[in-house]
Amino acid sequence: MPERIVIALGGNALQSKDSAPTAEAQLEVVRQTAEQIAEISRRGYEMAIVHGNGPQVGRILLAGETARDVVPPMPFDVCGAMSQGYIGYHIQQALKYALNIRNRNYPVVSLTTQMVVDRKDPAFQNPTKPIGAFYSAEEAKRLEQEKGYVMREDAGRGWRRVVASPLPRKIVEIDAVRLLWDHAIVITCGGGGVPVVENPDGTLEGVAAVIDKDFAAELLAEQVNADALLILTEVEKVAINFGKPDQQDLGSLDLAAAARYAEEGQFGVGSMLPKVEAAMKFVRNNPGKKAIITSLDRCLDALEGKTGTVVTFA
Amino acid sequence: MPERIVIALGGNALQSKDSAPTAEAQLEVVRQTAEQIAEISRRGYEMAIVHGNGPQVGRILLAGETARDVVPPMPFDVCGAMSQGYIGYHIQQALKYALNIRNRNYPVVSLTTQMVVDRKDPAFQNPTKPIGAFYSAEEAKRLEQEKGYVMREDAGRGWRRVVASPLPRKIVEIDAVRLLWDHAIVITCGGGGVPVVENPDGTLEGVAAVIDKDFAAELLAEQVNADALLILTEVEKVAINFGKPDQQDLGSLDLAAAARYAEEGQFGVGSMLPKVEAAMKFVRNNPGKKAIITSLDRCLDALEGKTGTVVTFA
Repeated sequence: MPERIVIALGGNALQSKDSAPTAEAQLEVVRQTAEQIAEISRRGYEMAIVHGNGPQVGRILLAGETARDVVPPMPFDVCGAMSQGYIGYHIQQALKYALNIRNRNYPVVSLTTQMVVDRKDPAFQNPTKPIGAFYSAEEAKRLEQEKGYVMREDAGRGWRRVVASPLPRKIVEIDAVRLLWDHAIVITCGGGGVPVVENPDGTLEGVAAVIDKDFAAELLAEQVNADALLILTEVEKVAINFGKPDQQDLGSLDLAAAARYAEEGQFGVGSMLPKVEAAMKFVRNNPGKKAIITSLDRCLDALEGKTGTVVTFA
Repeated sequence: MPERIVIALGGNALQSKDSAPTAEAQLEVVRQTAEQIAEISRRGYEMAIVHGNGPQVGRILLAGETARDVVPPMPFDVCGAMSQGYIGYHIQQALKYALNIRNRNYPVVSLTTQMVVDRKDPAFQNPTKPIGAFYSAEEAKRLEQEKGYVMREDAGRGWRRVVASPLPRKIVEIDAVRLLWDHAIVITCGGGGVPVVENPDGTLEGVAAVIDKDFAAELLAEQVNADALLILTEVEKVAINFGKPDQQDLGSLDLAAAARYAEEGQFGVGSMLPKVEAAMKFVRNNPGKKAIITSLDRCLDALEGKTGTVVTFA
């Protein structure tokens, strides 16, 4: 049986900090990323790919808000679906090529994916994620009244809408992902999935929320019974005392140690912490399995046990 | 064996002419459309869905161009992929609900889909499809020089970019569509597919072009060996002498008659003509099969042979 992995791609797999955030520049970076993923495929792993979408969906929203006198702006859930089309298109185009030159004629497909969140998730009581354009205090007040947005002042730069970051609960399209799994590389749950809530009448309704893509990848890994969750980011290993003279890179991390370090505040909120938490959740619910946190360019070595931080139950 | 059909959804299946072109209004219309499609599914048909994207991709492009001083605008191929995410999300959300209330727990999934076009397609010599914003003559000249766009004056309203409408040649993700076909309702080739050309080195490259969604649906129907191609539009039947006192609605149409009427100019270029041509192509290449052109709200009756225009080989 081939090993089955879910790969969570961080922002650096899609965009470089050194170039303008254009689609053309994204495609260049994605082509490099696809080389790594194709190489993983060549070594016999079966996989699904989850990608982030923070900067992309932010720009889609901002463009829409900027042009709002000309074109009706899209709601945030639709912006998320659009970002899945945008990023999925680039990944599948680049990955198909990277597979072809390795003589692997293997389907690559990206699915528009909805993620159910719980309307009662405590995150909705305390929205913290800023999205979209900056507004004056006056405009912010008007948006709060007219649209029910929650607006926050953002470090002197103006007012921005903030939305919740609830936990992902259910992948609406999981059946299709399972159907494809054995026969294709599936790009799914992009940006954590388009957030939807279930109404009492059974309808799904898009909501303005930001879902952590590492938690979405974790849920996916559980639901497809993956052997490993591979979280790719900018650093080769998780570290404690990060950025200090006594920084210590971790080759392995069990649940007890991870919980202790997390409690000590060793992992950056909104950066390394959610990755470690997603890894912890995966091995807690699947004690015989592993999660690996490493960098994109070391992922092959990490899969062979040569580097990265391997998170295990004990 | 259940009958397998490919459904091509016209613009009126996604948007009403009577309301503002917002995402919220689209979702309302799509929910009505989903009722019809779910009913087709309940009657045992297997199906894939192809939708148009003209107005939607136009607005995405226009928003991007309007906001170009704030956010780098997206190339047109990416706008197409974004429109697939946008429209696919709405259809799959609405259709899943419409199936659920009929006790059909059936996967619905939309795939980001690339469509290969031929760089040597004669359409590229004579681009005719206007897209995006209006510009002054001066701005148009600058865009021609800086970006290589072809710009045309548009009936006194200013200058617009025009792009080609080449024929669809190959569905890049066809393997995945075939994998899913027996187990899910697949939304694919949205907007005719994201247009790409094959470079000599094997890479696919997105191009600015508009692909007719009826021709894309026809190609899909051939490639999945569908029994019928169902083209849904605003009228119940194809007519000759359309809009004149002697208008005659056609219940059936064979290849010879269709070709004769087309030559007479009976079918509107850019409206009914491509639908009839797509239907003709399907039955020409599959002489035992049929294509049906009818309206969304009569599609069930048309599938039962009670209305619509049935196009056959002879």
